[in-house]
Amino acid sequence: MLIPAVVDLYYGNNDWRAFGFSALFMGGLAMAVALATQGHPPQATTRFGFLLVNLLWLTLAIAGAVPFLASSLDMSVTDAFYESVSGITTTGSTVINGLDQAPPGLLLWRSLLNFMGGLGVIALGLFLLPFLKIGGVSYFKIESSDIEDRPFERFQTFAVSLIGIYTTLVMLCAVCYAAAGMTGFDAINHAMSTLATGGISTHDTSFARYANTPSVLWIASLFMFIGGLPFSIMILILVRGRTDALRDPQIRVFAGYCIAFSILVAIYLRINLGMPFFSALTHSTFNFISIITTTGFASDDYTRWGPFAVACMFVATFLGGCSGSTTGGIKAYRFLVLFELMGNGLRRLIYPNTVQPVRYGDRTIDDDMQRSVVLFISAFFVLWAITTILLSATGLDLTTSMTGSLAALTNVGPGMGEIIGPVGNYAALPDASKWILSAAMLLGRLEILAVFVVFTPTFWGR
Amino acid sequence: MLIPAVVDLYYGNNDWRAFGFSALFMGGLAMAVALATQGHPPQATTRFGFLLVNLLWLTLAIAGAVPFLASSLDMSVTDAFYESVSGITTTGSTVINGLDQAPPGLLLWRSLLNFMGGLGVIALGLFLLPFLKIGGVSYFKIESSDIEDRPFERFQTFAVSLIGIYTTLVMLCAVCYAAAGMTGFDAINHAMSTLATGGISTHDTSFARYANTPSVLWIASLFMFIGGLPFSIMILILVRGRTDALRDPQIRVFAGYCIAFSILVAIYLRINLGMPFFSALTHSTFNFISIITTTGFASDDYTRWGPFAVACMFVATFLGGCSGSTTGGIKAYRFLVLFELMGNGLRRLIYPNTVQPVRYGDRTIDDDMQRSVVLFISAFFVLWAITTILLSATGLDLTTSMTGSLAALTNVGPGMGEIIGPVGNYAALPDASKWILSAAMLLGRLEILAVFVVFTPTFWGR
Repeated sequence: MLIPAVVDLYYGNNDWRAFGFSALFMGGLAMAVALATQGHPPQATTRFGFLLVNLLWLTLAIAGAVPFLASSLDMSVTDAFYESVSGITTTGSTVINGLDQAPPGLLLWRSLLNFMGGLGVIALGLFLLPFLKIGGVSYFKIESSDIEDRPFERFQTFAVSLIGIYTTLVMLCAVCYAAAGMTGFDAINHAMSTLATGGISTHDTSFARYANTPSVLWIASLFMFIGGLPFSIMILILVRGRTDALRDPQIRVFAGYCIAFSILVAIYLRINLGMPFFSALTHSTFNFISIITTTGFASDDYTRWGPFAVACMFVATFLGGCSGSTTGGIKAYRFLVLFELMGNGLRRLIYPNTVQPVRYGDRTIDDDMQRSVVLFISAFFVLWAITTILLSATGLDLTTSMTGSLAALTNVGPGMGEIIGPVGNYAALPDASKWILSAAMLLGRLEILAVFVVFTPTFWGR
Repeated sequence: MLIPAVVDLYYGNNDWRAFGFSALFMGGLAMAVALATQGHPPQATTRFGFLLVNLLWLTLAIAGAVPFLASSLDMSVTDAFYESVSGITTTGSTVINGLDQAPPGLLLWRSLLNFMGGLGVIALGLFLLPFLKIGGVSYFKIESSDIEDRPFERFQTFAVSLIGIYTTLVMLCAVCYAAAGMTGFDAINHAMSTLATGGISTHDTSFARYANTPSVLWIASLFMFIGGLPFSIMILILVRGRTDALRDPQIRVFAGYCIAFSILVAIYLRINLGMPFFSALTHSTFNFISIITTTGFASDDYTRWGPFAVACMFVATFLGGCSGSTTGGIKAYRFLVLFELMGNGLRRLIYPNTVQPVRYGDRTIDDDMQRSVVLFISAFFVLWAITTILLSATGLDLTTSMTGSLAALTNVGPGMGEIIGPVGNYAALPDASKWILSAAMLLGRLEILAVFVVFTPTFWGR
């Protein structure tokens, strides 16, 4: 919070007081809690892990909302909480109209929430969730039996490398953006939300203002794609030079559907709208990688690209990137496991006595992992149905309810339809809808199950 | 085909020739095939079973299309095939405009397709699919180890009872409809499509013409609900007096969500549209039971009931009735197994070493059944995504593509939106869309997996 305070001070904006006040208030509060609970280290049980994850994200979301409340924008509690949740979960949808006139500190705060949220979720996916047996398949994880492939024996080294690589990538992205013509401030902000696959922008029009600057769109596409890769593998490659880590099959699946959708729809745009092919490919690639990686930037109102493109965009909203990345959604490795399970199941219908292992690349997926994948996907669709009905009860039409809940659960951001589509935002929604969407974003970010667990009777039983 | 021929002759309609010709043609063809393949009884293997199911439904669909082609309505091959598939799969959507002026024999043929399709699918669900390890949980099936609960030791007795009960229910329904004021012809036709949960009507306006006759709507609701019950259990109750068979937990789930949606939306209609409560309850119950049982009758344009009702209707489209009924969709027992699996999975996240059985009522579900449920639901959602994209490629908007493919896969019939909503029909769609939807209806009717299996390399391997 002190960084935006300094930035506002530098730009001569009075909002620096809001950040200064928030920093003091939250810092004081945190210190009080720290002192009050001193000397009672909690027992590191599975239950504690689940509770920690839930309370951590909720606390971060509440803390992140304080500067919005204190700022000159006069935001309601609902809007402040929504904006903070959207930032910290790297969803990136906004309830603020008039971003171009907003104080620079506040804009930076939103990008910082994306940045921190992205970092947090990589740590969560690489370190905490696999320990709790939720999510988190990666080449790195799967090779844990093999000592040689554990690049770091201790958490500390691991965390430092992660922060180092993540920050370096953000800076690299910012330099590229600036070279392609963005202002320094915009470049830094967009770089943070690009790598975090968050989608927060400093302008109401998001990337539509760069619609005629292909270099910016291709840079964004590249770095969003990198944001969708498993960070464990980046660490292996960059720190150990282990390029064989690229064989992780989820990368092929992720790259596969990114390329397939981009090219297919580029051809469709060429034929259907008569766009020049390079321009069609640029916009198709940018918007598909943006949706698939759950970033949510838009360079154009793709809901006007024709029915085939729209249906592809809708399906792309489910996909997500790799395990251990900043993306949300169902994610590539789950599709891989699911299709393996389906192929196996169909074979067993013909030969009921054949038992074949479920494979992930050249490795075997154990029962726990299979169960966890099925459990997640089931919970995802059940939760989608419930959220859609709840949103509709607040008065939103079917398209808005259905795509809004989906875009929140997958942490994508924009939905479909007049209100929340790629050129709209969430400002006009009723308060009740915003609270439901905030809950959905948090649920999606914590891979649903980590939240569900805490609400089972078993969790609170003896 | 001879029945509609006689009916047309009775009403003095020249179309009797079309049915007479179709009957002779198909009869001759069938006899030729029978003679040609005489003396070569096929081996009853699992593969043969799968092939049989697929070819049987395809053959019935083609045979059912012949009278449409020969009739005075001048239907194209596409439309004739679509209408026949829609009838035989008990989907009930139509591509015919002007049903009120159509020849009576043709109307009866459509209802007969529903009637036969319903009967066929019960036989499929009770007898063939469980043998192929797809679908088909029921109290009856699950107790197969317990000799006492096998009501019939031989297929013949079983088939005769099934046809007897099914036909009796149709006649009972027709008598009730007639007593409530329908003409004899309409009563018989609607009774057939009600019990088959098909949704074929003799009027363009379907049940909207009975919107102000609550007795008709309640009779329809009752018999659609009965059509959604497992027929094995009806046989146990009616033939053996085994009322304890009603304890089959899927019945409670099915009845539960029917009642919950009906009452919830009735209250919403009372508050939101100011309808009198009895009228609201009548229409809510009728339309929800119609969609949940995958019948597809509509007494009103429920897409104008307000967002909450519309979202509930959308979610209801997935549900379906019981295993061994005439309904499509995901079906109550699969939700039961899924929620048991989810509960179990969440408990295991907290206590990784607990192994608890997955329960269905007071019985345990084996691994094969669990796998089959997960396999079906996964295949369902994957297929839904593919069909949506394919339909959109034929030029249909997102709502039409998404709800049309869903309504075809679940054999419900009406979708959402301007074209294929409850007051629309499928006549205006391009031919390509109709072929895709026909394939989706057949896939849905054969529980998807029975079709998928035939398209795996393993099936055709040695």
